[in-house]
Parts: sequence; structure tokens; C-alpha cells
Amino acid sequence: MSPPSAPKTPKAKTDSITAYMRERGEKARAAARVLARAETGTKNAALFALSKILIDEAAEIQAANAADLRDGRAAKLDDAMLDRLELNGDRIRAMAEGVREIANLPDPVGELCELKQRPSGIQVGRMRVPLGVVGIIYESRPNVTADAAALCLKSGNAAILRGGSEALRSNLAIARCIERALTDAGLPRDGVQVLDITDRRTVTEMVAMPEYVDVVIPRGGKGLVAAVAEAARVPVIKHLDGVCHVYIDADADLEKAVAIAVNAKTQRYGTCNTMETLLVDRAIAERVLPELGRIYGEAGVEIRGCAQTRRLIPEAIPATEEDWRTEYLAPVLAVRVVDGIDAAIEHIETYGSHHTDAIVTENYGKIRRFLREVDSSSVMVNASTRFADGYEYGLGAEIGISTDKFHARGPVGLEGLTTLKWVVLGDGHVR
Amino acid sequence: MSPPSAPKTPKAKTDSITAYMRERGEKARAAARVLARAETGTKNAALFALSKILIDEAAEIQAANAADLRDGRAAKLDDAMLDRLELNGDRIRAMAEGVREIANLPDPVGELCELKQRPSGIQVGRMRVPLGVVGIIYESRPNVTADAAALCLKSGNAAILRGGSEALRSNLAIARCIERALTDAGLPRDGVQVLDITDRRTVTEMVAMPEYVDVVIPRGGKGLVAAVAEAARVPVIKHLDGVCHVYIDADADLEKAVAIAVNAKTQRYGTCNTMETLLVDRAIAERVLPELGRIYGEAGVEIRGCAQTRRLIPEAIPATEEDWRTEYLAPVLAVRVVDGIDAAIEHIETYGSHHTDAIVTENYGKIRRFLREVDSSSVMVNASTRFADGYEYGLGAEIGISTDKFHARGPVGLEGLTTLKWVVLGDGHVR
Repeated sequence: MSPPSAPKTPKAKTDSITAYMRERGEKARAAARVLARAETGTKNAALFALSKILIDEAAEIQAANAADLRDGRAAKLDDAMLDRLELNGDRIRAMAEGVREIANLPDPVGELCELKQRPSGIQVGRMRVPLGVVGIIYESRPNVTADAAALCLKSGNAAILRGGSEALRSNLAIARCIERALTDAGLPRDGVQVLDITDRRTVTEMVAMPEYVDVVIPRGGKGLVAAVAEAARVPVIKHLDGVCHVYIDADADLEKAVAIAVNAKTQRYGTCNTMETLLVDRAIAERVLPELGRIYGEAGVEIRGCAQTRRLIPEAIPATEEDWRTEYLAPVLAVRVVDGIDAAIEHIETYGSHHTDAIVTENYGKIRRFLREVDSSSVMVNASTRFADGYEYGLGAEIGISTDKFHARGPVGLEGLTTLKWVVLGDGHVR
Repeated sequence: MSPPSAPKTPKAKTDSITAYMRERGEKARAAARVLARAETGTKNAALFALSKILIDEAAEIQAANAADLRDGRAAKLDDAMLDRLELNGDRIRAMAEGVREIANLPDPVGELCELKQRPSGIQVGRMRVPLGVVGIIYESRPNVTADAAALCLKSGNAAILRGGSEALRSNLAIARCIERALTDAGLPRDGVQVLDITDRRTVTEMVAMPEYVDVVIPRGGKGLVAAVAEAARVPVIKHLDGVCHVYIDADADLEKAVAIAVNAKTQRYGTCNTMETLLVDRAIAERVLPELGRIYGEAGVEIRGCAQTRRLIPEAIPATEEDWRTEYLAPVLAVRVVDGIDAAIEHIETYGSHHTDAIVTENYGKIRRFLREVDSSSVMVNASTRFADGYEYGLGAEIGISTDKFHARGPVGLEGLTTLKWVVLGDGHVR
């Protein structure tokens, strides 16, 4: 996260990171009050302005990004990281378009739902309101700066954004665009604050200020997420492993089963919703595994299987206990033949990560059981696990994917950045 | 919380409280899987059985309670605590009736909502599911044991209940009833575990086992709640101060204003939804404060007021800055004359605790602003703050009142013990 060539932080600032962060928190809290009551039109005006400014300032953003890339190469960042860091013209346009799409989403704030008449005479309902101040901690991708800022702004929250040191110049160039958009729309410039220092202590301070920060969302590798959760004194929306399963049941339609099992593994290898373990009902294994083995073989996917799998797919190597728990994020797949839905659910509950799991079957009773009994943030029937995504679910965009159960599970969109307060309407009513 | 005469804990157990708590956690996690998929009828059968067993075993419960009371008196517990500890016949019947009412509430689990067709062809919706394992930490009232067990069971959660040492025998007598009800209904006896040791470390261990406990709800004094929040590594639904306001606006109906201001303060003094500060618009102060002063005086309520208040209520003593932040829980009221709704909202946001705040006015624009801009878990119009309560809101019962924003705000009922997971229905769909 902190390559040695990162831009130097002025000494005076690092001497008092606590003071620096508390000042950011205080400003964010004040801005949050204004944003919470901002009109939808005003928030959208700021977002449309931001979308335009990002395009207008593309050259400046690219210049800042070029400096980050140059330092990154000198620091020998790996190719994948440099790729994530890069902002070319296409990516800047995509970033601007993403902000515009968020402007076009319905405003969740102020929605009043379930207003019910109570026997006492009062009416009781709930109003959707912002969480307040959202802290986002992320790594190399600078487009997260615009994306997270837009989602927080639309949902009426103030944001404190702490990106990776390798992307600092790019993030600050985008931050200047955000600041202009906010002030152009008459909103507080502190509504979105991008930290201009990236000392690791900014993270530990941010997650320990419950008086200023209502929730922290770490977007990055497991190490970052676990470290944030460990130190946190504020709620965290955290995304840990995605050990996703597809279970092909005896009553599966073979064609659908093959299509889903292939897509769930091979459409993209590095995503959290990619299948990592395929479970196949013993009753159908002979009819489905040889064909799948051939297709995976052609795609270059290594199979690690149980004994029965290895009889049906000769190229498969033996799976160890560890394989059932592993998120490969690579062209490797664990395959296990199981005795029906009970064994499948037992396997998923024992080894899975409660992220996304799918059943392929035409059997109503088994669908009902799988949906109810598999305790994952997404449970699917006859669909590829790759659909577990904020855009596919219709959230418009996602700020993260929660693998926790509290508050929100699975893809978290604008609604996940809000909460419900109670509204009571009376006419002089007393108890 | 731990009077010296509390029943002694066997030494072998306290030597390994960590092991004791982890064993409870493991059992709870296993029971939670069974409860999550239990049929509504089965859960209700257990609750109806419990309601009946509590009545059948009333004599045994009262005998255990008599022993707790005797020790409590010997330990010189104060009268209020002894009163909370006591379980007489009426209270046992009320406890049994409460359990029956929870059985009659709709089952929140399994509800499938908002199933929408997506452009990709899949259908996406959300299913309400239990949180998993709920830890409840409470003090003297033994009826919480039955109440919390019933709410957790109905919502498909396993529960670990840790009551106060002064109520240990009473709690364990109720626990035996719960265990019988669970096993009679064919549900796992570990579905509700009442800790039989009350060492303080059971609390610190419970809140530090995220692998076994999904949420902790401390029900008790500020000290307990703050200590739990400080040590917690799991989510906490916490209830801190209730510094509630009523704001009487210039456009208030005088009769309603007086009724609400009197009821909000004097109906009960010791509850968290009791008004602690009355704000009065300067334009109406002369017409409303003298009458209120007279009524409060008759009720024995001490007034601490600003200069203008003291001119209109001669008996009032001067309010200090500290008064605006104080939850008296007593016949004491802070009163401040303010310049209109802006000053009222500013006061509430500066000094309030975001619990429950009410406006009295007939003015539509001001109602709209107050509802939107006051960032409290309950905001009310022309109604007494005393309505902020799970029963009054129609939740049936409440497991706690959240003063946090994350997950749930205000009274938390069965729904607050659940979360939503995503359900995807396809027919062979791939990306």
C-alpha cells in the first residue's frame, strides 16, 4: 500500500495525524448536516457538474496520473497494480459517465414508508435518512475517488476518502474537480474530503472516531479489510472472501447446468463472485462431469477433485481439505461429488464464505430448501454466481459488497448508505 | 451489578471463562442453523409451550426469586433494584402473556420482497433472514430472560443471555422452562442459553467472539452499555442517553401544546422517552409558559430556565449549559425560549442525544423541515415523546432502543433481529 517512492508528506502534518484526522472529522460532521437536508436537485446539479468537470479537466488528471505511474514504475509496482492505477481517456470518460448515472438514480433520502395508523390515534412510519459521515479506505484505483464521492453525495452523506499513496496525485486531481462541483452547486466543499496524506495512521485514526464517522468501508485486499475490522471502533461494511459454490442437483437440466458451471468459473477469474468450488450430485455426476472436464480443460482451468471426480475427469489432481476453503481468484476449480442436497448444503455451510451460492435444479422443493437454508448474502437458482453485483441487481452502482450480516448483506448501493428513522404524526396526542 | 452475596461460581468454571464462553458460542452457532430454517408453526409451538410452562412452574420460579430477593436484601440492594428483581404472581402472568403475544406476531423470517425482473432476464429480490446468534446482556429484571428468549426464537435467532448476578436463581428457573419448551417443540435446547455464571468476563468474552456472536444488545444502565461498546468486536445495538425535546412553535395550537408538554414530562419521569428540555418559540412564550409553569409547579416539577423563561415562570431557577445536555430521569425540566424553528433545530442538534424530539405546530412548512432536519431516531409532530416505544409503534415488543444509526434506529423489534439476503432466480442465465 505504501511504496517507498510515494509523494512525501510534509513533516508538520505527520507530527499530528490525530489532530489532522479529527479536524477532517469535525468538518465532515458539519458538512453532513447540510448534505442531509440538501434538495435532490441540488445534489444532482453537483453530480452533473462533476461529470462535466472530469471531462474538462481530463488533461490535468492524466498529467497527475502520469506522475503517479512514473513513480509507480520506478517503485517496481507489479503490472496488475500499474494497470489499476492508470487513468487513460477512456477510463476518465467512463468515470464521468458513472457519476452521471448516479445522478440519474432515484434519491433514497426522505422517502417515507409504511405510515400506519395506530390504535392510540398516532400515525407511525419510517423515513429514509443518510448515515451521516462515511469513511472509505481504498487502494490503487483512482476512479474509486469519483465513484465513492458520487454515491455518498447522492445518499446525503459526507465522505472522507483515503486512497492509496501510489495514487495520491491522481486522487487529488479528481478531488479538485469534486470540490469545484460541490461549490458550484452551493454545497459545502467539506462534503467530500480526499485526504492529502496517506500515512497508515490516517486509517487507524479514522476507524476510531465514532463521534465523527458513522461507518467505514474498506475497499481493497483482505489484509486491508482485516486490519480495518481489527482496529475499528465504528461500524465497518466489510468484504472478505468469496468462496462461491454452484451445486448441480440430480434434477438439474443438463444444458443449463453446463452453461452455468462454465460461466460461473470462466467468465472472469479474479472476481469475488467467481465460482471456486463445484458440487455435483452423485446421481448426475457421470452425465455432467466428463463434458465439464473437457470444457474446463480447453479453457485451461485446473481441476482439483475428490476421488469420484478424478474417476470422471482423469486430468483432475487430488483436492485437499484446504482446497474446499480456498478463494483461488485464478483458473483453478475444486470439484466434489456429493450425496444430494443435504450434503451440498452441509459442504457450503462448512467451507463456504457466505458470499454467493447457486443451485441448478428443476425441483421446486429443493429450490425452496436451498434458498432458505443456505446462509449466504446471495443465493441463486439456475443462474451464474457472476450475477452477484450491484449493477446486475439494479442498484445502479455499489459502494461495496458486504460479507457481514448486520445492516446490509451482499452488494451495497445507495440504500445501504442510509438508515430508517421513525416518524410519528399526531394531532395533540398524549399517552 | 455484582453484589458480594451473589451465588458463588464453582471455581473450575471461572478458571476458564474463555473456554466456557467459546463452548456456549459454538453450541449457539450450531443451534442457530436449525432455528434459521425452523417452520413458523414449530417456533410458535415452542412459544405457546413456554407461556404455559411459566404459569405451571410459577411456584418454582417464585421460590428461586425469593432466594434472590433474600440475598439482595442482605446485600443492601436499593429499593428500586429490589423492585425490579421481584417476580410476583402478576409479573409471572404478564411474562407468560408477553411470550404468547410474541407467538402471535407475524414471522418475519423467509419474507421475500421486491422481486424484480432485470434486463439480463434474472429476477432479483431479497429474503428476510435471522442475524444468527444474538447476545443479550442485562441487569436485574428477570422477566427479560423470557422476553428476550421469545423475541430471538421468533426471529429464528439463537440467543446467549447473560443476566445480572443478583437475579441468577430467578433467571435459571426461567431458563429451565425455556429449555423444556424448546425440547417439547423439537427445537435444539441450545437455541437459548442462559449463562449460569455471571463473572464480568463473560461479558467481555461474549462481545469479542465475532465468529460465534452476530450482535450484542446491552440492556441496562449507561455504564454497562458504554463498557460493552468499548470492548466490542461484534456489532452492538446500543441505547445511550435520551435527552428528548418538545419544541412549541409560534404556530402551535395552545391546547395541544400544553397537553403534549405536560404529558411528555409528567406521565413518567424515569423513562428514556421523557422530555428533558422544553423549547418555546419567543413569539408564543408569553401565552404558554405561565400556564405550563403553574401545571409543572403543581406536579412538583422543578424548572431550570433561561432568562426569558425565568421572567415568565418566577419559580424557575437558572439553567446552566450542563442542563441542556442532561437526562434528568426525574421531575426536573430545562426550559429555553428560542427564536423560531432554526434556533430550535440548532439547539436540538447541538445538545440533544438524537433519541426522540417533537414539534408542536400547525404550520406545514415547519413540520416538513423538522421531520427532515432533526436527526433523531424518532421525530414527532403534535405528539408526546412518550410514544417512542416498540408497543406504541406496533412492533409488538422491542428488544431494545437503538441510539445508533447503523442497521436500526429507535425501537428495535423482530425485524431488527433480521437482515435481508439477496435471492436470484434464473432459468439457466449466464453473464
